[in-house]
Order: sequence, then C-alpha cells, then structure tokens
Amino acid sequence: MTTTDQPIDHASVQNQMTQGHSPELDQLYKDFAAEHLNPLWTQLDDLMPEHPAPKAVPHVWKWSRLYELAKRSGDLVPVGRGGERRAIGLANPGLGGRPYVSPTLWAAIQYLGGKETAPEHRHAQNAFRFVVEGEGVWTVVNGDPVRMSRGDLLLTPGWNFHGHHNETDQPMAWIDGLDIPFSYQNDVGFFEYGSERVTDYATPNFSRGERLWCHPGLRPLSGLQNTVSSPIGAYRWEFTDRALTEQLLLEDEGQPATVEQGHAAVRYVNPTTGGDVMPTIRAEFHRLRPGVETATRREVGSTVFQVFEGDGAVVIDGATHSLEKGDMFVIPSWVPWSLQAESRFDLFRFSDAPIMERLHFDRVHIDGGNR
Amino acid sequence: MTTTDQPIDHASVQNQMTQGHSPELDQLYKDFAAEHLNPLWTQLDDLMPEHPAPKAVPHVWKWSRLYELAKRSGDLVPVGRGGERRAIGLANPGLGGRPYVSPTLWAAIQYLGGKETAPEHRHAQNAFRFVVEGEGVWTVVNGDPVRMSRGDLLLTPGWNFHGHHNETDQPMAWIDGLDIPFSYQNDVGFFEYGSERVTDYATPNFSRGERLWCHPGLRPLSGLQNTVSSPIGAYRWEFTDRALTEQLLLEDEGQPATVEQGHAAVRYVNPTTGGDVMPTIRAEFHRLRPGVETATRREVGSTVFQVFEGDGAVVIDGATHSLEKGDMFVIPSWVPWSLQAESRFDLFRFSDAPIMERLHFDRVHIDGGNR
Amino acid sequence: MTTTDQPIDHASVQNQMTQGHSPELDQLYKDFAAEHLNPLWTQLDDLMPEHPAPKAVPHVWKWSRLYELAKRSGDLVPVGRGGERRAIGLANPGLGGRPYVSPTLWAAIQYLGGKETAPEHRHAQNAFRFVVEGEGVWTVVNGDPVRMSRGDLLLTPGWNFHGHHNETDQPMAWIDGLDIPFSYQNDVGFFEYGSERVTDYATPNFSRGERLWCHPGLRPLSGLQNTVSSPIGAYRWEFTDRALTEQLLLEDEGQPATVEQGHAAVRYVNPTTGGDVMPTIRAEFHRLRPGVETATRREVGSTVFQVFEGDGAVVIDGATHSLEKGDMFVIPSWVPWSLQAESRFDLFRFSDAPIMERLHFDRVHIDGGNR
Amino acid sequence: MTTTDQPIDHASVQNQMTQGHSPELDQLYKDFAAEHLNPLWTQLDDLMPEHPAPKAVPHVWKWSRLYELAKRSGDLVPVGRGGERRAIGLANPGLGGRPYVSPTLWAAIQYLGGKETAPEHRHAQNAFRFVVEGEGVWTVVNGDPVRMSRGDLLLTPGWNFHGHHNETDQPMAWIDGLDIPFSYQNDVGFFEYGSERVTDYATPNFSRGERLWCHPGLRPLSGLQNTVSSPIGAYRWEFTDRALTEQLLLEDEGQPATVEQGHAAVRYVNPTTGGDVMPTIRAEFHRLRPGVETATRREVGSTVFQVFEGDGAVVIDGATHSLEKGDMFVIPSWVPWSLQAESRFDLFRFSDAPIMERLHFDRVHIDGGNR
Repeated sequence: MTTTDQPIDHASVQNQMTQGHSPELDQLYKDFAAEHLNPLWTQLDDLMPEHPAPKAVPHVWKWSRLYELAKRSGDLVPVGRGGERRAIGLANPGLGGRPYVSPTLWAAIQYLGGKETAPEHRHAQNAFRFVVEGEGVWTVVNGDPVRMSRGDLLLTPGWNFHGHHNETDQPMAWIDGLDIPFSYQNDVGFFEYGSERVTDYATPNFSRGERLWCHPGLRPLSGLQNTVSSPIGAYRWEFTDRALTEQLLLEDEGQPATVEQGHAAVRYVNPTTGGDVMPTIRAEFHRLRPGVETATRREVGSTVFQVFEGDGAVVIDGATHSLEKGDMFVIPSWVPWSLQAESRFDLFRFSDAPIMERLHFDRVHIDGGNR
Repeated sequence: MTTTDQPIDHASVQNQMTQGHSPELDQLYKDFAAEHLNPLWTQLDDLMPEHPAPKAVPHVWKWSRLYELAKRSGDLVPVGRGGERRAIGLANPGLGGRPYVSPTLWAAIQYLGGKETAPEHRHAQNAFRFVVEGEGVWTVVNGDPVRMSRGDLLLTPGWNFHGHHNETDQPMAWIDGLDIPFSYQNDVGFFEYGSERVTDYATPNFSRGERLWCHPGLRPLSGLQNTVSSPIGAYRWEFTDRALTEQLLLEDEGQPATVEQGHAAVRYVNPTTGGDVMPTIRAEFHRLRPGVETATRREVGSTVFQVFEGDGAVVIDGATHSLEKGDMFVIPSWVPWSLQAESRFDLFRFSDAPIMERLHFDRVHIDGGNR
Repeated sequence: MTTTDQPIDHASVQNQMTQGHSPELDQLYKDFAAEHLNPLWTQLDDLMPEHPAPKAVPHVWKWSRLYELAKRSGDLVPVGRGGERRAIGLANPGLGGRPYVSPTLWAAIQYLGGKETAPEHRHAQNAFRFVVEGEGVWTVVNGDPVRMSRGDLLLTPGWNFHGHHNETDQPMAWIDGLDIPFSYQNDVGFFEYGSERVTDYATPNFSRGERLWCHPGLRPLSGLQNTVSSPIGAYRWEFTDRALTEQLLLEDEGQPATVEQGHAAVRYVNPTTGGDVMPTIRAEFHRLRPGVETATRREVGSTVFQVFEGDGAVVIDGATHSLEKGDMFVIPSWVPWSLQAESRFDLFRFSDAPIMERLHFDRVHIDGGNR
Repeated sequence: MTTTDQPIDHASVQNQMTQGHSPELDQLYKDFAAEHLNPLWTQLDDLMPEHPAPKAVPHVWKWSRLYELAKRSGDLVPVGRGGERRAIGLANPGLGGRPYVSPTLWAAIQYLGGKETAPEHRHAQNAFRFVVEGEGVWTVVNGDPVRMSRGDLLLTPGWNFHGHHNETDQPMAWIDGLDIPFSYQNDVGFFEYGSERVTDYATPNFSRGERLWCHPGLRPLSGLQNTVSSPIGAYRWEFTDRALTEQLLLEDEGQPATVEQGHAAVRYVNPTTGGDVMPTIRAEFHRLRPGVETATRREVGSTVFQVFEGDGAVVIDGATHSLEKGDMFVIPSWVPWSLQAESRFDLFRFSDAPIMERLHFDRVHIDGGNR
C-alpha cells in the first residue's frame, strides 16, 4: 500500500501513451471514434482527479438584485399552466449557463403577484421553499393548505401535487430548492399536471400535517408507518428560533448543546425516522453569535446558504464575501469555507448531503477550530 | 400443511405415552430426574399451548386504595439508601405474590413526602414515571433536573443515574413502570448506587434534555448520533393534550387522524429514530370521546393502563370493570379487551410491545369495529 | 454521578425500613397483601442485584448418559400425535425441575427409532436441531424434506410446519434447541397440529431451500424480500468444516482470520440480512487447536455448548469440567468461562444473544488473553 | 388531484410567457444572464419531462470489434503509471463522445498483454471486473491476490488499492464497470497512486477474502462488523452456474425458484448485509432457457449487459438486436426492453439500481408476460 514519493508528470506519461503519432495509432483512434469508444489513458486526470475538482464555482447572489429582477418578471411575465412557476434559477457561472446552482441542486427565487395562483402539478423531484420575507401565500400540498411566512421551511416531497396562491394584494417572493439537476442528469424525473387552480383556497394558520405531527416526541397512532419524506409540510420559524435560542442559553450555562463555540444549529428532520426531510436534500438552520468565526471545512457534496438575518461574511477558498439579509451563495464540493458573524448571524442552509451519505461518498475535513 | 379435523384428546394420548406404569418406565422417569432431565411428552400442553395461556390474570387496582396505602407507608416507612424508593409494586394475583404486574412489567405507586429525597442510583432496567396528580418533585437524571407535573411522562432509561427530591412540604405520588420482571427472569440486571442525595437541587421548569430536543421536527446538530432510548427526559402534558385535541378536531373535519372513530392516540417516541422511547417499554396516551367503545383486541404481550381523567370501563375477557381517575389495570397476553367511555376518557398506557416486535412474536387480532 | 465509597449493609437498612414491627406496620403489610401489592423496599436486593445473579447454575450433561436414557425411552415410550416428540429436555438444576436449560432456552436430546415418524406441527417458538452423530432421518419443513447428517444444523423457525421420519431401520438421536422457556414465560406461544404423517417422504440429498440459497454471495432474484429467519433449512457440516479449516490456515499464513490465537469460529446467519438465523437464537461453531485456552469471558445471557469432536474442558466460575464428544453444558448469564483444548476441539454453541442485543441488554467482559 | 383532460401545448404557452419581445422583456433576459440567472418558464419541458427522456441512447457493441481494437491497443499503447490502465471506454452515442456508457456508468474493455503489470492505485469510485473469456491475470486488492477466470466477477470497491498482473505469455481481456460518470458529475472522486508494481505476485487459486467469506450462510466471528461493500473479492463462475442450474431444475420440479418462466437469475450480494455488492452498482447474472422471451420492462436507471454465452437478441424500444458471446449493450432509463433466447442464453448485467433505490427514485413498469 505504498504511494509514490515524487509527483507524477501525468501529461508527460500520457503523452508517451498517445503521442507516437504513428499512422497505426492515428488509425486506432479513428476506429475508436467510429465504434463509439474512448480510451481511458487520454483523459484519466480529468475523469478521475486526485480530489473533487468541480466545474461549479463558488458564487454569491445579492438578494437586492434577485428581488428586483423577480419583481420585474412579475410585471412582464404571466404565471400559469405551461410555464407553471415564475421561478428564476440561480445559474452557477461554472456550469455553462444551465440553471444549476450546483451539479445536483436547483435554487431559485419564486415570485407570486397579488391574487395570483400558480397551478397544481407534481413531479418526482423533491422540492422545498424557504421564506426570507413576506407572507400571504398558501401552498397546497396534496390538498393540504400550508401558510407561508417568514422563517418557515415548506416541503413538497417528490410526487406530491402542489400549487400556490397569493391571498393578498401584495406580491411575495421566496426561494425554492430542488434536486432538478441531479434528476435531469440521471434521468429519474416524472412530471404530471394537476388542477389549473389550487384544490383548496382555505387559509388556515396551520396545515393538517402540522396539526398531526408537530408535537415534540409524539407520534399519532394513525401514522405508525415510516415515510420516505417528512409528513410535516411546514417547519415554523417560531420553533426554529426557540431551538437555537435554547442551544445558546445552554452553552451559556456550560452545557454541551452547540456544534462549536457560539454556533447553534438544527437539522430539519422527518419525525418518522429522525433522518433527513427528503431523500436527496438536507436542510439546516445555523445561528452564530456576533464575532464568531466557524472552523474551515471541506465536504464532499455541494451546499447553498441564504442569509436570513444579520451581517457577516463567508470565506470561500480564501476569498471573503460580505453578506446581508437574503444573500445566497453556493459552495461546490470539497471547496474550503467558513462563516464570520459581524452581528448575530442567522443562515438557512440546504445541501445534497443525503445523496453523498446514502451512497457512502461523504467525507469531511475540518481544518481548525474557532478563533 | 393439512390440519387434523377432529380435536385431539391430548390427555389420553399423553396417558398412553406415560401411563404404562411398568417398572421399566418408572425407573426411566427416576433416572431422568437423577440426571436433571425432563421429557417433553409429559408436559407439552402446558409448555406449548395452542395460544398464549398466561398465568397472569386481568386485574384492576383502585387509585383511592393505592393512594391511601402509599400515604400510610409515607408515615411508617422511611425512604433512603438501601430500600432506595418508597415504591409499592402491583402484584398480579396470578403470579404468586411476586411484585409483577405481568411477566415482563413492574408497575408501582411511588410516594415521596414533603422535603424528602430518594437517593441516586442506576440500573440496567428501563424506567419511567407518569404523574396522574400533584407536583413539586424533581427527578434528576444524569444530573439534569426534571420537573414532575400532572400528565407528564418522565423517562429514566437503563443505566442513567437518577434520584428524586420533593421541593414542597406536601407529599406527592406517581406511578413507576419498569421492566424488572423481564430483567429478573432473564438475568440481565445491573445496579449501582450513586449519590446519597440528588446531584443538583435546582428546580427549573424545563430540563436540559427538553430544551435541546423538544422542538418538533428539529434535531440539534450536536445530537446527530442515534440513541438507544429517547434523549427527552419529560414529555409534557401540554403537548400530549394538544396532539389529542387536534386529532379529534381533524376527525371533526373529516380528515384521517384518529386510530378509530372517536379514539385519538399518540405514542411517545425517541426523536432520533421515531421508534419507542426505550428498548423494552412502549408508552402511549389514549383519548376517547364520550360514548365511544373501542374494537375488541387481543395482542401478544402484556399492557397496563392508568385512567388519567374521566369515567368509563374496560371490558376484559367479557367482564366489565368500572374505572375512574387513577385506576390501574393490567391485560395479560392474548386476553381480549375493549374500552368504553362514559365521559371524555383519557388513559395512559404502557406495554412490553417493543420486546414482542423486536423478537417478532407480535400478533394482533381485532374482533370487530366500534358500536 | 458519584458512587458511595463504603459498601452498604442492605440487610441492615432494609431491616430499619421493615422491622419496626409496630402494629401499624403489621397492618400495612397485611393490607398490601389484601390489595395485591408488594413493596419494593423489602426485596430490592433480590429483584435488582448489582449484577446478574442467575438462579440457573452451570451444569454438564454427559452424552453417554443422555444417549442411554434416550434409547431406553425409545423402547418404552411411543412417538406420535399428542406427545409429538420423543424429546428429553435438559433441566437446569437451579430451575426447580422445569425443563429449562436456562431461563430462555430449551435443549433436549431427541430420539427417533427406525422407520418411525414424528408427526407435523408448527409453533411460534423457534427451533433448530444439531446432529452430533448418525444419519437417516429427514425433517420436513413446510413441505421441504431436509436430510439430517452428522455436523449439520437444521432450522425450523417459528410457525413453520415440520415433522421428522426415519428412513432406516436404525435409531437416530440429535439435539433440539428452542426458545420454549422464554416463550412460556412471556406468553407468546402459539401451537397448531398438522399432518399425522410428514407431507413428503422423499429423501433428497439437498433440500429446496439449500438448492436456492446455499451459493456463497448469490441471492436468487425470486427471493429479494428479506425474511425474519434464515431461508436455509440446513447448514451442512462440509461447509462449516471448510470455513474453520480456512481460518486456521489463514492464521498460519499470518493473516487476521480467527477470533483469538488458535480459535476459529463461525456464526450461522440468515443470508438475506447477514444477521442471526432466528430472532431469538444465535448459533455458532467453534474450533480450538490442541492446547489452546480461550480468554475468560462473562456475557449477559445464557449459552449452551455441545462438544462435537475432541477432548478438552470448560472452566466455569473456576471449576474445571472434562468434556468429550457429545457432552453438553450450560453457562448462565454473567458467569465467567473459558475453554481448554486437549486435542483439536470442535464445539457447537447456541445462545439467546439475539434477545439481549435486540433489547440492548448485551454486555461482555473479557478477563484476559490466551495462555 | 385532477389532471387536465386535453394535452397542453407547452410551446405555445411558453411562447406567451416569453414571446412579447418587448424591449423591457429583452432587457430582463439580458439582466438575468448578467446576474447568472436562468428562468424556469423557458425550459421547463426539457428540465422536467413527463417521464425520463434520456439523452443516452440504446446501443450494442460487438465483442469481436471490441476485442480487435483492444488487441491493437495492446500492440501500440504501453500500460503503466500515468495512464494506469489499457481500458477503452464505451461511449454512449447520445452523450457527445464522453466515455460514458450511461449518465452514471462506465463500461470498458481492458486488455493486459503477456507478463504485463498495471500499477496499483485507489479511488473513491467503485469498480468491478467481469471475465467473459481467458485467464492468467491476478488482480491484487489491498494486498490480496485474486485470480481472474472466465465467468468470475471481481470487486474493487471504493478506496481499495488494486493492480493487475498477467502471469502468462498470452494477453487477456475483460470488462470493467465503474461509477465514473456519476462520480465525475457529482464531484465525489478521490484518487491516489500506489505501488508501481503489484504488492504481491503470488498466484493462489483463491483469495483470502474468498477463503474467509465464501461459505454459504457462515460468517466468520472475526468479521461481525458490517461493511459498506462486499468483503468477497471474487464471485466464482462455478457457484453462479450451479445456482442458476438449480433454479431451473427446481422450476422443472414445479417449485418457485425463477423470476419468470424459463428465466433464472441471481444477484451478487454483500454477505454482511444481503444487499448490493457496492453502494452504487448492482451486479446480476441471468440465464434464459432456449426459446424464452422475457416480459418487456421499463426501469428508472440505466443498465448494461454482456452476453456470456449463447445466442439471442434484445428488443430495445421495439428494435431487435441480435447478440452473441461477448456483445455488450446499454439500456437507458425508462426505455422498454426484453430479452429473447435462441439457445440457452447467459448474460451478465450491471446497473445503477442501488443509486435509484437508496434515493427512492426507483420505478419499474412491466408491460406483459412471457410468450
């Protein structure tokens, strides 16, 4: 199990293998192409790098710009059957203009004008919404109307019908997260149109899923079968905020509760299993005390953050990016990053970690501790 | 795989096998005994009945009597190191005076006088407390003080140090449930004394475990490792009551939420897995609307109920037993039972179902529907 | 989490709690009895010992005696419907004459005369047979005839119909292992008679289960559903012997393969899960090189061995018992034991370890290493 | 949950959303591009099709051509450090010349001349080899030399060092399967060079992994920890052939054993779990009786076959492709296919099914039965 001591000049070695340029070799490569073949030795470095070498790049999108463009879309582009959603995808600059925030994840700002309805449909792709500001929209998931308010995480797991309607005269915007790029790339997607309108225009404060499932440590006897995705349609801000507050208070009392000093965090989970909310997407919420800087981490898999409240920065691969409310950023696989809090700093996070863990590709490297 | 059409006269057959009463046969049985052997054919019916034939019998204990005797014990018997707890076990009349409410379960009323302390210890046996009335005691579990109030379920899973102290001048009584008979029978118990006093006399409203874990659908990132038993030390009545109320409201709205018409129920679960709170004990809370009668069920395994509030009855094996607040009753394995609610009828339930399910002995037979 | 420094004189403390002998106290204990109650403080030490204190004792049964008594039973006691089996249970001397080799396990020698048939039945109890010598009997499990030969482990998991028939003119004896005591104690047993004869008198060399499942690392596409118990009806000696031989050869080559120096061992497993063959019973085979002595172990749970071949001894709780082919012995919970090999020493082992592990009561303590 | 009755003219609807061609709209799209944004409504149909619409196409590669080109590579291209392997990847004609047989899978023919060595390395990507003909090469996996012979499946799960050496004077060719495209696309790959030579030139008939693990239903006590991938380095043809033979014999006896009439099949599994051999790749072997035609299936995920022996055809999306020994073909996601056997028809199969199942994207549709 020894490893070589000196770095290998791959280009040179591969040149040896390919560079003869003899007529026979030229003919061989022509024949490969004609037979739909492609030799490994000409492209090993690209295909099998020493560590993940993502084409996706780190990038920050400013909420002020996102919101302004979404608003203009609201004025110019109708929402309805066919286009389905007024959703504007974040297109990673390294991924050739495709609407992929990373190779696996879709992230978008969605905008719904006053009194508008986005029609119902369902798809194999898993989806969620997170609300950084505003209220007044209900999303109807398999007939269950779910209120959307600031700080809430709303789920529409694969193959659940869903539509949205704005009860107010004011527009509302939020972010959508899905596994569209992964599904597209691996040919797993199904899609079906539903009602042109939502199937229930009721506007209850709490969805039926919440009323059945949002009681800590209690499981309804009518729901003893485990489910692939969480039966909770909405994770309310009130609970998230309280959980984070308690972690920091416990830390003040000298108790183990936070992930690192000054850094509280919760994962949204499926109460039937304690695991991730959906099979492909992890969702978390992080809170830093003012002045805290997290340890620098690298992780296999890609992750997206949105600032929920507060000011701070993210250091990605050595470059510092200032952040304020609503700003979104993506960190590709194995790129080192850390967060810095100027004020109390609240961030929503989602990632493809369940994919990595279920397929046993997950690795984490933590460079150091807190300052 | 055919079965015989006519019933077998086992006694007669077995007589044939054993009744020769020849001198040779007599000598054989003597030699069996001398060699510590025991033939199957003389006792098959008893050892391997056609269905469970428990020696334990159904029985009801009245809370008024339990409480009165506990109170007298409080006057006459000190609590402290050695006896450890002023706990009075329910002794199933079929089990020969042993303090076993069933072959697997221990149930007791525990009584702690004003200002008294029950010293700390730990044991492999899994334990819980449920509070039908009163307040003022804190149980300290591995150093975490947990308030005990009416309607709360408190856990002390195996091998956690725990003690109790009464902060008030008034006595308090509650019930204890453990797997003592199972542990005793199968020789799995370990026991260790701890502090003569509790290790923390603080009286917080909420324990650290609750503050970290009682946020629905949220898991602390500092607690991603699954635990054998629930990390929640106290399941509060407020949450249980709300969950049951919502189930009945949803039923009123025509939504699937209850286990059967007019019968709401929750299971207390370990939030890290969605499964039972402890490896050997299941805990549930049931609420019936006035006038409801549940379907008659038989289940493998034994179960204990305590009436929390309201009036009604339990029909066990055809016999009806009237019930009021605090009354406790046991249903042995495979004995048919149903509940009848006169008023709104709230009951706490615990059982050995996790043992049966994990070892794949579980079976349920439901005779019919509601009236 | 401190523990007391000096040992507690429990008897004295408990005397204080109970010994007042005041008329009030006497009356209290009378009232307890009348109400079917039993206080903890009078019996804590017995019920909740500091470590498992089994009533079962270690014991060795000599195969020569077992076989001789079984043979005499064959002459004197018929086999047939009602008594069902000519099985003679090992009765642990500590368990009051009950046919329990331990609190959880039944072990017996079963004897079937030439041309005899033991009729079909099924039961919730899990069962196996192990053959220390002889051949000529087929056991028919759910209609699949399974040859029984020296060194084979045969399974009849819970609720599978099974009967046996002797194809030859010679008697045959083997051992049976079941979870009868556990099932009896916890009231989980069901029993149903089947055919008076076996349903298939064919005598194939290999059962259908083996032909479908006994190909290492290969799973039939017709059998992708996991099963609670192993679908393999017979684990053949040829495979067991080869596996043990290879482990010792690998050890000779300096490779990690044995559990400890000179001690090869395999566990029989369910190929659909890699776990134990049945939910309540673990089965293993151990081979020691001549001269090897295993480390002394204590384990929660009880275990039974049968010597398959060779001479040696077992040291149980400090006492050495010589062993030869066919001898059986039981080790109760938490009693220390080790094996000593005079010749190459082959032993079959079964235990209740799956119960302990699934309920998280398992603990192991290993005192030292090999000599 | 209604669905629209008449098909939607998406193009038309989307045109409405995008076609205004007002200067404001033009500016909006320009601003989207400048901000790295991409609206959903212009590309919904492509991104989220009604069912999987793979860019990959079905394709057949003839073994005679593959082998001839591999042989010419053997004459012209050296094997060694840098290029690492003389492996020629099958490039799906729909995937733009990339060496991807499907979006998730790599399939290649690898060729090693007499006395050649392919140096050791390891990578996060999971790999296997299957041998359609030839012998004389040993692959050394983490220091364990594994013989390669016709019909064998050899595993090199992620992050195991491995190299190959040809012991003979004759060249040998086999196929490699890996999850390279999946790993590349999702940025999960790690790669490390090992020894320039293999670390052990021994040529045992059976590897240590086989000697420890290839005993049906037996697990070494030294290997009780479950492993992510199978500990078996080689699945020998002898066992595979016997398992398939037995299934067809059992079918002849009227027993359930095959997946459909005349179609025997086994899945290669990890004996520690009963699940797939590696987290991302499923491997199976199928045998059809002469004249059998399988039911037409569609499955989410992509699959590759190689004919091992016999003549027949595959019908993919209605087109029939004749097949003979060594021919390889790929079936992209959700494309219908069935197999037809002229002679006895043996095929090796591998697929990305574990990815689909672990992420819950798996769906199967079976059109009909056998002819």
